[in-house]
Amino acid sequence: MKTSERAQLCELSPMRKFHPFAVEAEAKGRKIYHLNIGQPDIETPPAFFESLRQFADPVLAYAESPGRPSLLKAIQRYYAGIGVELAEKDILITTGGSEALSMLMLCILDPGSEVLVPEPFYPNYNTFIRAAGGVIRPIPTSPEEGYHFADRAKIEAEINENTRAILFTNPSNPTGVILTAEERRMLLDVAKEHDLYLISDEVYREFNYDADELSTMASFADGAENVVIIDSVSKRFSACGARIGCLISRNQQLMAEAMKFCQARLSVATLDQVASAALYAEDKSYFDAVRAEYKLRRDTVLEKLGQIPNVICKKPQGAFYLMAALPVDDAESFQKWLLTDFEDHGETVMFAPGQSFYATPGKGINEVRIAYVLKQADLERAMDLLALGIEAYNKRG
Amino acid sequence: MKTSERAQLCELSPMRKFHPFAVEAEAKGRKIYHLNIGQPDIETPPAFFESLRQFADPVLAYAESPGRPSLLKAIQRYYAGIGVELAEKDILITTGGSEALSMLMLCILDPGSEVLVPEPFYPNYNTFIRAAGGVIRPIPTSPEEGYHFADRAKIEAEINENTRAILFTNPSNPTGVILTAEERRMLLDVAKEHDLYLISDEVYREFNYDADELSTMASFADGAENVVIIDSVSKRFSACGARIGCLISRNQQLMAEAMKFCQARLSVATLDQVASAALYAEDKSYFDAVRAEYKLRRDTVLEKLGQIPNVICKKPQGAFYLMAALPVDDAESFQKWLLTDFEDHGETVMFAPGQSFYATPGKGINEVRIAYVLKQADLERAMDLLALGIEAYNKRG
Repeated sequence: MKTSERAQLCELSPMRKFHPFAVEAEAKGRKIYHLNIGQPDIETPPAFFESLRQFADPVLAYAESPGRPSLLKAIQRYYAGIGVELAEKDILITTGGSEALSMLMLCILDPGSEVLVPEPFYPNYNTFIRAAGGVIRPIPTSPEEGYHFADRAKIEAEINENTRAILFTNPSNPTGVILTAEERRMLLDVAKEHDLYLISDEVYREFNYDADELSTMASFADGAENVVIIDSVSKRFSACGARIGCLISRNQQLMAEAMKFCQARLSVATLDQVASAALYAEDKSYFDAVRAEYKLRRDTVLEKLGQIPNVICKKPQGAFYLMAALPVDDAESFQKWLLTDFEDHGETVMFAPGQSFYATPGKGINEVRIAYVLKQADLERAMDLLALGIEAYNKRG
Repeated sequence: MKTSERAQLCELSPMRKFHPFAVEAEAKGRKIYHLNIGQPDIETPPAFFESLRQFADPVLAYAESPGRPSLLKAIQRYYAGIGVELAEKDILITTGGSEALSMLMLCILDPGSEVLVPEPFYPNYNTFIRAAGGVIRPIPTSPEEGYHFADRAKIEAEINENTRAILFTNPSNPTGVILTAEERRMLLDVAKEHDLYLISDEVYREFNYDADELSTMASFADGAENVVIIDSVSKRFSACGARIGCLISRNQQLMAEAMKFCQARLSVATLDQVASAALYAEDKSYFDAVRAEYKLRRDTVLEKLGQIPNVICKKPQGAFYLMAALPVDDAESFQKWLLTDFEDHGETVMFAPGQSFYATPGKGINEVRIAYVLKQADLERAMDLLALGIEAYNKRG
């Protein structure tokens, strides 16, 4: 039986590629420190679960296709709090940021369309873009330059008649890079000049360790036609399992097209929307505490990485990831070896090898993404295991 | 800014097209009986809400991409109960039957692919198929023949080199038709002979009023390569707002492709999966009671329709919908008129005009879909309003 060309062009998640080796290692009694996935260990605010307990409708009915009014209003209030006035019609609730991305791509890409994405990038972008018949054209970066991509000449060199959009995560998964105000302005100027959608995936917005204010591409008054924001409660409130995100744009033609896909899938889960609206009642002190915890973790990982000879890693400013170039021949072989041949006091470590975060063949081979989602003591131990692993791997016969 | 051709080819939901007129009518104080949408009024089993209250994990984490093991096992047990042995790998949990359909289309359709669908059909099929670049080729039916489509010659006449699949709802939304054992066998034979996927959307399986046993296309031992089942808890347990469905197939190549899309969107909502697993503990008495209630409603609507002169409606066997041809010039104009110009004791009625359930231009113009999702007394009143409305509409100046 025939399957589609697009499906064949998509790949399984690189984060889950080493899962079988991890299962084997655990069967041998190994403890694994997981720096490979972005599942935070921070508690979900109890308000989420409390609002579920208070739900009293006897029939669990469909929600409105664009989202429950209470959640739409909560998101409007949250944006007003960071200085952005949104109309209710500028927001569509989606099943995670993932559905926002896949709907968006269906709305803006035709077969052969290109999307500029700085590499390394979140690998699932590839699947969402492929699903809509498009292809990623990477904006190159390097570990030595700290993965900064916001360079006008570098970006304009990749624009052609098939280019429909520029897509980036800000703060970045996987690099932790945060755009400056000048870079954001320049990106919007480029998008406007070339009639491109400017898609800013801001699900890590609060994880910003060196700035006093939260930034969003939605704040530009002249960005209405071009700017699209991807947002989610997953990381913001450590509620990944709620699968509540949203698509935000003031471009009403785009939102009208997106509404067709919203109506076709009927609605987003009702109770997760009820409970997510309750999350938005958290105040600044919640975010301050979470930010302080992650900042400590970032600084811990950076310090530890700095002590490993020949590692390249510039200080990342946000999210809870960083990319580093390691002194190994191939990070995938190294990861496999860490699971099959290495242990220290019965323990080993997992990260996400870098190659899968690139579209350009041959790039990222000695790089890894580290998710600093463990408590400080565990992170320190995990980084020590990485250092021991690199040494032993390079000395192996 | 350019939007995609596929998005432009999709349409807003026909079920929501008359919403603005309904809002206006309600503003004038009209009571509207809603026979236009398939939102059941049956209570969701309390086990759903109880299992949520018992959830004690402090972090609401992502679930496994293919689905939580407890829900996969509950679905395996449910299928074993209707005589179908499934392996865990034959099931992927999805965000409603809707996501199962859209993922499936991405896996099997290329631009230009055709899917045979008996018309009238569930209008959202069009969006899922368009999203993947495909197009519906309708298998014609007629109200006079009770919308029966399972005729080998009729189906084979529509097969060409672009045909990839046959898709139908069984029991049918919108017609209520249920396939016989012989028809199901024939459909599989046709699919096998022409190398087509045979996609059976069985979300209404339990709503079967004249048979002793539940049937599924999954029961054919020789259907492993061709048969795909779409399933959901939405109607089965009156839990539409949970958005929990699944894609079922023994075709492992297909399931491997689908897994790529499952991993890209990370997971289905964790708590809805936990609570849906609890739903599957309901026993036969639950389904018997629900079935008895809907059977009464079907019989009520049929009897009432039979009393309206010149209505064509053959007895439907399942789901909670029926299609009828009305003695009006245009069901869309009639529906609008019912909301803007008609009332009886301050009340009026809504149904879903038939045209949007057809791909063939000009078909279904005098037909309507009636969802019998109200209690018996309300249904009777709604049907009386329909009768009064038809009479007044045809006498208007």
